[in-house]
Amino acid sequence: MSTISQSSEDHLIRTLTQNLTTGPDIITGVGDDCAVIAKTPQEHTLLKTDTIVESIHFLPEEDPERVGWKAVARVISDFAAMGGTPEALLVTIILPPDTELQWVEHLYIGLNAAATAFDCSIVGGETSSTATGAPKVISISGTGTVAPQHLTLRSEAQPGDLIFVTGKLGGSISGKHLDFSPRIAEAQWLVNHYKPSSMMDISDGIAKDLPRLAQQSECGFTLIKSTLPCNPGSTTEQALSDGEDYELLFSIPPERKEALIDEWAKFFTNIELTHIGEFTKDQIDSLSGGWDHFIQK
Amino acid sequence: MSTISQSSEDHLIRTLTQNLTTGPDIITGVGDDCAVIAKTPQEHTLLKTDTIVESIHFLPEEDPERVGWKAVARVISDFAAMGGTPEALLVTIILPPDTELQWVEHLYIGLNAAATAFDCSIVGGETSSTATGAPKVISISGTGTVAPQHLTLRSEAQPGDLIFVTGKLGGSISGKHLDFSPRIAEAQWLVNHYKPSSMMDISDGIAKDLPRLAQQSECGFTLIKSTLPCNPGSTTEQALSDGEDYELLFSIPPERKEALIDEWAKFFTNIELTHIGEFTKDQIDSLSGGWDHFIQK
Repeated sequence: MSTISQSSEDHLIRTLTQNLTTGPDIITGVGDDCAVIAKTPQEHTLLKTDTIVESIHFLPEEDPERVGWKAVARVISDFAAMGGTPEALLVTIILPPDTELQWVEHLYIGLNAAATAFDCSIVGGETSSTATGAPKVISISGTGTVAPQHLTLRSEAQPGDLIFVTGKLGGSISGKHLDFSPRIAEAQWLVNHYKPSSMMDISDGIAKDLPRLAQQSECGFTLIKSTLPCNPGSTTEQALSDGEDYELLFSIPPERKEALIDEWAKFFTNIELTHIGEFTKDQIDSLSGGWDHFIQK
Repeated sequence: MSTISQSSEDHLIRTLTQNLTTGPDIITGVGDDCAVIAKTPQEHTLLKTDTIVESIHFLPEEDPERVGWKAVARVISDFAAMGGTPEALLVTIILPPDTELQWVEHLYIGLNAAATAFDCSIVGGETSSTATGAPKVISISGTGTVAPQHLTLRSEAQPGDLIFVTGKLGGSISGKHLDFSPRIAEAQWLVNHYKPSSMMDISDGIAKDLPRLAQQSECGFTLIKSTLPCNPGSTTEQALSDGEDYELLFSIPPERKEALIDEWAKFFTNIELTHIGEFTKDQIDSLSGGWDHFIQK
């Protein structure tokens, strides 16, 4: 009898969701950073849920305020990746009975700090106990909005489009994975001025996420590994595979490259923008590695 | 150092959510069956999240299709309780690595069956592993819609309003908690023809949920225990405290009682409607018991 530990996360999700029925108002369901629902001519609704589990996404001894920040910031990063903004959040906490009340109170301080920093509201949630000794689980669901002309999917890159990444990659485990700032402002600027042909946020590492973006757009890609912007102390290999960077990975037509780079540098003086490759008609480069929830290493 | 097992679920939620900041478009946040967000003059958005945990909400040996049905049906019951209908669902599953793939596939059959039966779509979700031996967790988040004139809160019952309950109560653990039918059609009929002054679904038992409804409306209540509609084999005490009935608990002004009972019987020939009490200005009856996630029994 096969178990989920023998399956990659992507394969498991494809298996489970292939027979789902969806209504006519669903623009994008499973497979992008958020689901997209047609609402009014001026606005689509975005939906996202994301979970962090103790000892997988954060250590038991970690400051709960930082854990709360991370839980909310991960979801906000997904709204950014669609070209949208967050609106309302629901918080689910599943805790063993010996969890200290003070831990939960500090978790909520972090959750609320991230929500407030990015102009959205925590409007409800769910609390449940779990078995003594089981890991703590924090799951955030949220709605957001995006103007139809700003909606940026994973599936619309064209061969020839150039691939860019914001910020620096690798070494997130040293602390950045708890304190990162979702790229809402940067994504909003992009969709207003240089609407990408495709975009996602990097959660599992370029090595896992770039092939996903290419596959969804039915493209191949070339990656110039020497150009990868590495965080201080990180190797190119770590920049490819560590994951939890929460930077934007996106593409634009080649003729807009110079203007984008010039204008970006004027607006975002502290955040790098790097041209790292190109989408292609045929499969050229391939990558392996990156983070997978299910495959046992 | 105090732990969450020393706190009731209601007290814990009040403690955690008292300092949350919410935006001006939030009509109802924490404390009702769903959160309510103003969207257009014709439509509010409803948001809900709900979680079931192995060995708490379902047994390890339970048929996973029934577990999936329950997970989705619980959320749909909350949309019904607001006078609304569900629209799109996100599915989060958190599973130990030795979970059989077949178990998850059958879970999804049940999830999709419930979504399809109540005209909503599963549009995405999240999968995460947890520690070996930790309980399986299934968390459903969803959006729904409600016409502003149909929105029925917990907080607007008036002293003198009569309290009704649909169906029969108690003994859910014998199987009904896995196979129940959320009262969407019944709630839609009510908000169209006999708009309740307050409504909620019964998840933790009348003994827990009626005092919640009264408190949110700043009312007391009288309960005629002898009128409680009990499932076959259930005592009045079980009807009060077993929980997981997923029936509607609602109130209407007394002058509409006879007409409601007459018309209900014509439309819903197989589902009882019972007048069980009255909201009052002063605290009169009190109840204890019902289901609590956190207090260790």
